[in-house]
Amino acid sequence: MRDAYLVGAGQSAYGAFPEESYRSLFQTAFEEATESVPNGLEASEIDEAVIGTLGVGGRQLGLSGPAVTEYVGLDGVPCTRVENACAASGFAVRQAVQAVKSGMADVVLAGGFEIMTDMSSDATKYWLGVSGETEWERLSGTTFSGVYAQMASVHMEKYGTTREQLSRVAVKNHANGAKNPHAQLGFECSLEDAQSAPVVADPLNLYHCCPTSDGAACALIVSEDVVDEYTDDPIRVAGVGAGSDTVGLFERDSYTGVPASQRAGETAYEMADLEPGDLDFAEVHDCFAIAELLAYEDLGFCEEGEAGPFIESGATELGGELPVNTSGGLKSKGHPIGATGAGQVVEAYKQLSGKAGDRQVDDPVRGLTHNVGGSGGAAVVHIFEREEHSSSKSSSARGARERESEVSA
Amino acid sequence: MRDAYLVGAGQSAYGAFPEESYRSLFQTAFEEATESVPNGLEASEIDEAVIGTLGVGGRQLGLSGPAVTEYVGLDGVPCTRVENACAASGFAVRQAVQAVKSGMADVVLAGGFEIMTDMSSDATKYWLGVSGETEWERLSGTTFSGVYAQMASVHMEKYGTTREQLSRVAVKNHANGAKNPHAQLGFECSLEDAQSAPVVADPLNLYHCCPTSDGAACALIVSEDVVDEYTDDPIRVAGVGAGSDTVGLFERDSYTGVPASQRAGETAYEMADLEPGDLDFAEVHDCFAIAELLAYEDLGFCEEGEAGPFIESGATELGGELPVNTSGGLKSKGHPIGATGAGQVVEAYKQLSGKAGDRQVDDPVRGLTHNVGGSGGAAVVHIFEREEHSSSKSSSARGARERESEVSA
Repeated sequence: MRDAYLVGAGQSAYGAFPEESYRSLFQTAFEEATESVPNGLEASEIDEAVIGTLGVGGRQLGLSGPAVTEYVGLDGVPCTRVENACAASGFAVRQAVQAVKSGMADVVLAGGFEIMTDMSSDATKYWLGVSGETEWERLSGTTFSGVYAQMASVHMEKYGTTREQLSRVAVKNHANGAKNPHAQLGFECSLEDAQSAPVVADPLNLYHCCPTSDGAACALIVSEDVVDEYTDDPIRVAGVGAGSDTVGLFERDSYTGVPASQRAGETAYEMADLEPGDLDFAEVHDCFAIAELLAYEDLGFCEEGEAGPFIESGATELGGELPVNTSGGLKSKGHPIGATGAGQVVEAYKQLSGKAGDRQVDDPVRGLTHNVGGSGGAAVVHIFEREEHSSSKSSSARGARERESEVSA
Repeated sequence: MRDAYLVGAGQSAYGAFPEESYRSLFQTAFEEATESVPNGLEASEIDEAVIGTLGVGGRQLGLSGPAVTEYVGLDGVPCTRVENACAASGFAVRQAVQAVKSGMADVVLAGGFEIMTDMSSDATKYWLGVSGETEWERLSGTTFSGVYAQMASVHMEKYGTTREQLSRVAVKNHANGAKNPHAQLGFECSLEDAQSAPVVADPLNLYHCCPTSDGAACALIVSEDVVDEYTDDPIRVAGVGAGSDTVGLFERDSYTGVPASQRAGETAYEMADLEPGDLDFAEVHDCFAIAELLAYEDLGFCEEGEAGPFIESGATELGGELPVNTSGGLKSKGHPIGATGAGQVVEAYKQLSGKAGDRQVDDPVRGLTHNVGGSGGAAVVHIFEREEHSSSKSSSARGARERESEVSA
């Protein structure tokens, strides 16, 4: 089947924007995305759109995809809304890739958006909670921070993971977010700040939890047949993987891993013919600090149970062996639910096209994005690769890297 | 790109089922679908699932796809929820076709469900209304029957369409639904009944409006590489088309046609290399009687403005030139929003595999399904074709039919 390419991506700033609507935020993201395409891309060239959103706070629950695409002048273009909770637009990107590979479209817009900051605390609890398991979790009072707190507790008990290691996720991601002009919480925080924050759901404190956010993000996926019209430096969608699971955490055998992420990662690595060690950076789903640590293990960045020491080693800092969440992640950049997955792809695009400013990774070739819905009811992984390094070249690169590590070992 | 095939489909009964949950209804549809596959199909053979639903009345707004697939034992299988209002599962079927054509999946479950009858009238108005345009329609008091009443009024004014012609849609669809054991309103109605019903939104009366319903439906789409494992009588997805438009009716240039349906139909006919005259039956989106008449014109079954006389001619009755809504349609079979599009595919499967019982069309080769979201913010069309009549044969069949009609003219 033919290859799909990422030729542009853009986003609004993430934050609280009472003066904006979900449509105006989407327009900002759409314009940044089309303007980012090296050789230009007109709205009229878009064959199809796939839009992720959770619920727009109940404003526009149906046709919420077409509601934003009509606003940017795409009212005739087939548009499908997808929703997989916090993985909505990660799955939108995946569907855009399928649309291109299917031969039914050459240029597909994948995007997402959410408005969350204008709701009361109770409304937010409802509109987020309905993405969790309803009968046995939400209606019994369990919140998302509560669900992830259970995961953190078990990981601490089983592997000796510490509160300080959780806090280091916040410190690292805020350090990155401080370099990202689009970040909602774009300031640094010290380990002491992160350790002394008020408890939200023990063991998780405020710095172990992402904020609620308004925002939008878009990515442009095209087929191999037209990619040359849009760019001379193509970025290939080398791997795509997805997995699902029980919606409720309580139904799973283990709390110290997310099987949907594991399946998504395995599928994406296999399709890309790559291994975790081939990656130059990754954006992972750090809705809570424990989620980033679980992602390290689920995606093979380190061994099971080793995520605590792994973050402590500095490996995932900017300049480390595998920088993770260079954008600031959900923690610092923000988490406007429906926008998050596409927003991760925006960071991958910026890194791979050398436009990541002060947080630029040195000449990256391959990056991974990882987006989770709920507590792991769904997960999707994409691997993007700068084309001048084709998969045969990557094999030699990998071989070289393996030899290097053997020498240094 | 490789072809996609429909190898099985099934549904729950549509109606009011206080003793059922959305999950148990989905299970019924899933089991009927897998059991309908001629050579059998195990749940473990499913690579991916795409599930359409509007909102489950606010019970489970996020991850509502995985919430049902886990219930039928597919908890590891990648699952994406799609939503395009009343066209949710029509778009789920389209996405399943893309997944197969993309080469990323060989066996895909496309389904949908909704529970609507346990809500108060106000709640129903909200949960349906949020699929309409919010700022200028819903919040100003416009309901869906009101929006379609506007379309009916303009069609009557412009083309002389009559209330009696609207009522004939109900009479025909109830006559068909009375032959469908899964129909919610499975009884016949006389023209007098349909004419004397109380007004809902003038000129539409109760018999011009579909009911609210509980129900679920599933279809199984497989690739050409594996179709022989599942059936000896393959049904090919010959054409797929989709279109979108402004969510609000008030923003459109014309009220007497649905541009999204026109675009969806044109794309599907072109892909299938067929014309409306090649069809042996069709399931169209008759949420309101006027919607079925508009579909006749938008999909080329008759000329613009001629839908009134066309239904009066009996052409779309069972036994007519082009039977429409043999299942009973949304009017008599029922309209559990998220299930409707997949439910139309269930009827296409039953007709094309000769399992439509008392409402069986005589030896049909090609059928079309047409599913609309909102007042036309999105629409999707599928054309299914029994494979022993390949597209080259269909061309000769069409030629023969054209010659016949020339002779008879």
